[in-house]
Amino acid sequence: MVSFDTIRSAADAEVDVGIRIYALAARLFPICRSITGDGVRETLHVLAQQIDLTQREVPTGMQVLDWTVPQEWNIRDAYIKNGAGRKVVDFADHNLHVLGYSMAVHRTMPLSELKSHIYTLPEQPDLIPYRTSYYSEQWGFCMAHNALLELEDGEYEVLIDAEKSDGHLTYGEYFHKGQSDRDVLLSAHICHPSLANDNCSGLALLACLARAMRSRKTRYNYRFLFAPGTIGALTWLASNEDKISRIDHGLIVSCVGDGGGPNYKRSRRGNAVIDQAMQYVLGLEGRRGTIQDFSPYGYDERQYCSPGFDLPVGLFQRSAFGTFPQYHTSADNLDFISPENLASSYRMIMEVIDVLEMNWTPVNLFPKGEPQLGRRGLYSALGGDKAAGETAMGYLWVLNLADGNHSLLDIAQRSGMSFRDIARAAKLLLANGLLAEAES
Amino acid sequence: MVSFDTIRSAADAEVDVGIRIYALAARLFPICRSITGDGVRETLHVLAQQIDLTQREVPTGMQVLDWTVPQEWNIRDAYIKNGAGRKVVDFADHNLHVLGYSMAVHRTMPLSELKSHIYTLPEQPDLIPYRTSYYSEQWGFCMAHNALLELEDGEYEVLIDAEKSDGHLTYGEYFHKGQSDRDVLLSAHICHPSLANDNCSGLALLACLARAMRSRKTRYNYRFLFAPGTIGALTWLASNEDKISRIDHGLIVSCVGDGGGPNYKRSRRGNAVIDQAMQYVLGLEGRRGTIQDFSPYGYDERQYCSPGFDLPVGLFQRSAFGTFPQYHTSADNLDFISPENLASSYRMIMEVIDVLEMNWTPVNLFPKGEPQLGRRGLYSALGGDKAAGETAMGYLWVLNLADGNHSLLDIAQRSGMSFRDIARAAKLLLANGLLAEAES
Amino acid sequence: MVSFDTIRSAADAEVDVGIRIYALAARLFPICRSITGDGVRETLHVLAQQIDLTQREVPTGMQVLDWTVPQEWNIRDAYIKNGAGRKVVDFADHNLHVLGYSMAVHRTMPLSELKSHIYTLPEQPDLIPYRTSYYSEQWGFCMAHNALLELEDGEYEVLIDAEKSDGHLTYGEYFHKGQSDRDVLLSAHICHPSLANDNCSGLALLACLARAMRSRKTRYNYRFLFAPGTIGALTWLASNEDKISRIDHGLIVSCVGDGGGPNYKRSRRGNAVIDQAMQYVLGLEGRRGTIQDFSPYGYDERQYCSPGFDLPVGLFQRSAFGTFPQYHTSADNLDFISPENLASSYRMIMEVIDVLEMNWTPVNLFPKGEPQLGRRGLYSALGGDKAAGETAMGYLWVLNLADGNHSLLDIAQRSGMSFRDIARAAKLLLANGLLAEAES
Repeated sequence: MVSFDTIRSAADAEVDVGIRIYALAARLFPICRSITGDGVRETLHVLAQQIDLTQREVPTGMQVLDWTVPQEWNIRDAYIKNGAGRKVVDFADHNLHVLGYSMAVHRTMPLSELKSHIYTLPEQPDLIPYRTSYYSEQWGFCMAHNALLELEDGEYEVLIDAEKSDGHLTYGEYFHKGQSDRDVLLSAHICHPSLANDNCSGLALLACLARAMRSRKTRYNYRFLFAPGTIGALTWLASNEDKISRIDHGLIVSCVGDGGGPNYKRSRRGNAVIDQAMQYVLGLEGRRGTIQDFSPYGYDERQYCSPGFDLPVGLFQRSAFGTFPQYHTSADNLDFISPENLASSYRMIMEVIDVLEMNWTPVNLFPKGEPQLGRRGLYSALGGDKAAGETAMGYLWVLNLADGNHSLLDIAQRSGMSFRDIARAAKLLLANGLLAEAES
Repeated sequence: MVSFDTIRSAADAEVDVGIRIYALAARLFPICRSITGDGVRETLHVLAQQIDLTQREVPTGMQVLDWTVPQEWNIRDAYIKNGAGRKVVDFADHNLHVLGYSMAVHRTMPLSELKSHIYTLPEQPDLIPYRTSYYSEQWGFCMAHNALLELEDGEYEVLIDAEKSDGHLTYGEYFHKGQSDRDVLLSAHICHPSLANDNCSGLALLACLARAMRSRKTRYNYRFLFAPGTIGALTWLASNEDKISRIDHGLIVSCVGDGGGPNYKRSRRGNAVIDQAMQYVLGLEGRRGTIQDFSPYGYDERQYCSPGFDLPVGLFQRSAFGTFPQYHTSADNLDFISPENLASSYRMIMEVIDVLEMNWTPVNLFPKGEPQLGRRGLYSALGGDKAAGETAMGYLWVLNLADGNHSLLDIAQRSGMSFRDIARAAKLLLANGLLAEAES
Repeated sequence: MVSFDTIRSAADAEVDVGIRIYALAARLFPICRSITGDGVRETLHVLAQQIDLTQREVPTGMQVLDWTVPQEWNIRDAYIKNGAGRKVVDFADHNLHVLGYSMAVHRTMPLSELKSHIYTLPEQPDLIPYRTSYYSEQWGFCMAHNALLELEDGEYEVLIDAEKSDGHLTYGEYFHKGQSDRDVLLSAHICHPSLANDNCSGLALLACLARAMRSRKTRYNYRFLFAPGTIGALTWLASNEDKISRIDHGLIVSCVGDGGGPNYKRSRRGNAVIDQAMQYVLGLEGRRGTIQDFSPYGYDERQYCSPGFDLPVGLFQRSAFGTFPQYHTSADNLDFISPENLASSYRMIMEVIDVLEMNWTPVNLFPKGEPQLGRRGLYSALGGDKAAGETAMGYLWVLNLADGNHSLLDIAQRSGMSFRDIARAAKLLLANGLLAEAES
């Protein structure tokens, strides 16, 4: 029986972890990230204060699958000055003001010409949009539509002091060693600038999760990836083809700090173990989780689930990308995420890890008829009456389906019982010599 | 065309069989049965007056799969006497009064101590519960809760004149020989004392059914088992491993005398022929049958459907066990069952047997295009107009799906036509040389 | 962008084709067809004015599968004259007046005897029914029930100047050669007399479609069959067993001139490509198409889908046969069909052909990760904004599912996108060297 004190301290611990994730996300928020450059390095440096992160770099021009690592982009300053010399747009105020990967520019031009380089959101006129142009040569600014309307005709001085030059693409990896040689992949994109939910939340959550895993003995290895979207995932895949066949389960983590969802998008396979596990965790009482079928648009599951890899990798989010009004705007700030939501996202991912760790495929060593449970004291091991009935049903379901073709998740799904009850029953049966683990 | 007289005499025959089953169940009701002992022998003796039953015995201590045949239990007398020498509980009044397999006891003790050995149903205070303790050493009484409340403090004399000793486990078998070497298993548990629905009803029904089969030429062999729950089924399985692969279909029969249901629980395989046949019979017009998926809790289907056997055995009941308030109480008496309900249960099981007997897998001998049915007089063989259309559709469906991969039940299922119409069409096509039977 | 003028001329072309089909159906309507005889020859002669039709004949007595080609039936005249010498029924008025394949007769008889040879529709008392007796020897007349009621008692002269004699069964074939050696079968029954929807409509539509195919380069060969129901299809199948394995898709076309439906009945296989294609075309916006599962009753799909052939052949209709009150009566006349309905049926079948022609199974040549589409200018190839998003999703879905196991129809089905968008995306990807066609 869990005491009230235990519950309280668990709740406290959870709030604590939420506060720690939030604080880390807040620390990451102001950094100007892109798919390459010093912002990524600074972000990894901050994360490395949590966990013993390995920073990896690959050079500009390197071929990664069908792509080429682009030049590195760094920016020092950017503004638009009006005729009176006042900065009407200033990169120092918000790093969303500059089009990601913008070319350098320093010119004076009339407002009419300048306007073709300015991006706004007329329907959300107070917000700055987030825009990038990684692979075509452009320069540009992003600003609130209302601020644009206030600009008077005349000449403006435009400066973007940015540089694209041969350099590196940078990403971080953390590897938690388990007992087996099978891997779980957990990945968050690191390429977005000051957007709190998308994806300071995911980066901070995974860093804190990795930290928590250090004290835990696991069956699986856990590989944490903090890499720029698309090109980062492709780089990792191209550089690690020998490790890919070791990945049994994977999860992309993004937008985990707001109060929406939870949402899970299945892997391309559709009924992979990670899909079953997520369906179980998101289906627990009180969670109104949504499960979506795979589609090839989204985050880096696009790469992991491409047909040449077809890895069992799904996407976990709170509000789904593109569906919330703050998405890819300056409103995706630190007010939009909260310690409570980060904590509950953390808990759900941790529960999925628990399920993956506890899932195995039993083989009934006494498959003819039911073995006599009473003689082995299995019924008396039960405690209270109601729980006794559940555990007894757990025994019967596990024994009946333990033909080597059903994992505990399969048994939970078929029986309609909770995974936890099934796993508990299986553990007791294993301990009593009634089950063996199927060879995989 | 069936005449009114035929219908009437069929209805009469049905009421007759209901009355005969009821009378037999009533004859079995007072006997004090358990999983072993003279009550089982007396029950088999009564059944043997209907059919040429083989009584089998295996000795205490025999290993049957993971279990051991227990000592034989017999009881002569039991009571609780109050200080005035009056019997306040008397085994002679109702055999549910004694905990099944109770140890012997003869002592005097205060009410306070006695109470820990008394089982009641506080929420059904006028009923005696049915309780057993086969495999752990206890003694006890069962009584109405209201009667317990009336007992005054003081000393009570407690007697259970029972005996556990090396002996035998007893069960009965009846084998109806058919033309093939394939078997149908029909089984009812014989271990419950004075409970009318659970399972005097099943025992009596199967005995009358076996009697009726004597005059019938069948394709299948029919094996009727009257055996104690769990240990009896395990004993039969352990003793007949060579016969198990001959079982094509099986049915556990229990609680068939009340007005609920009908209920059918599928075999573990889920779409075995017995499952299809039961679904057909319970889906006939006017029956509000319920079909449930397999679960590993229930009667002896638990043993037959264990993963090492995985036999196609389902469970047929009227009200499902555990769902009716009379279940496992003294209210499961002869008023709870009726000749009408027994007769309709009998009819449904007989119809399932008809379906099993009539089901086969046709192969179209003229598979290219439709064979010319008119030339063979098949359309004129039809009789009335509406029936003609149905039978014509039956011909077409059978011929079209007679590719060796569809049984008549499959064809009925896919066409949405009744099994009877499909079987009739197939029979006529076979007689006209258009079909052959697929080799199994 | 399609201009308004283009749309208008497409609509005009469509009305034009409807008018041409209607005119041809009207030209066929008065001819007295049956399963053999000069009516069939005259019909083929009219159709041959549209397309270079091959007329084939097989002799009476030839064995075709389980059937025998019957004697040829021809009729010159038929009437019923009353005592006053007035023709109360005259074949010259309507060819439905004579039972199809009626024996010859010339006698005088009282009304009471005559009546047993007269067929009417008491519930549609003004309509003449359509009846035949191909394979049993009978003579008879069909007439309006009200007209029958007006006949006065007395003697009537009955003449049917018809002849059954050894001759031929006649059918027509048109073959459009495509680039591959795989065939599409399109078939309409030619055996019904003056019934406009059933099936002057189908004959005329297929003839016009065949004519339109002449100017079209296709992947598939298209075989058009104009053959009497059942015996014609059996004759073709028996005579062309070597060509049957070349049929990848097939469609029976009947009742395509009324305003009902559209209806499609799946092939026996249930998810053949023709079934997917029809489901797509009938599911397009604004069409309230109905898809029915296969059943072995209907038109010649019965023969093509018999288990010995099991060809992927479905049935396309507007109103389904047997469901409309005009079915098999004199009300199935030229007022019941219209150029507009014929045109829209034509369009739907042409669209299905488009889908079959455009469907192929892609293999992603860059299956690891997503290939870089931007670099290849694929995003800029898109035009307008909304279409751009759709095509981008089309690229992603095609690339993701291009593992050699999914045709474009499969991809459209799984993605929920339109086949046209998927096919367009696949074509652009193919042109850019990102896809190859899977070997079949």
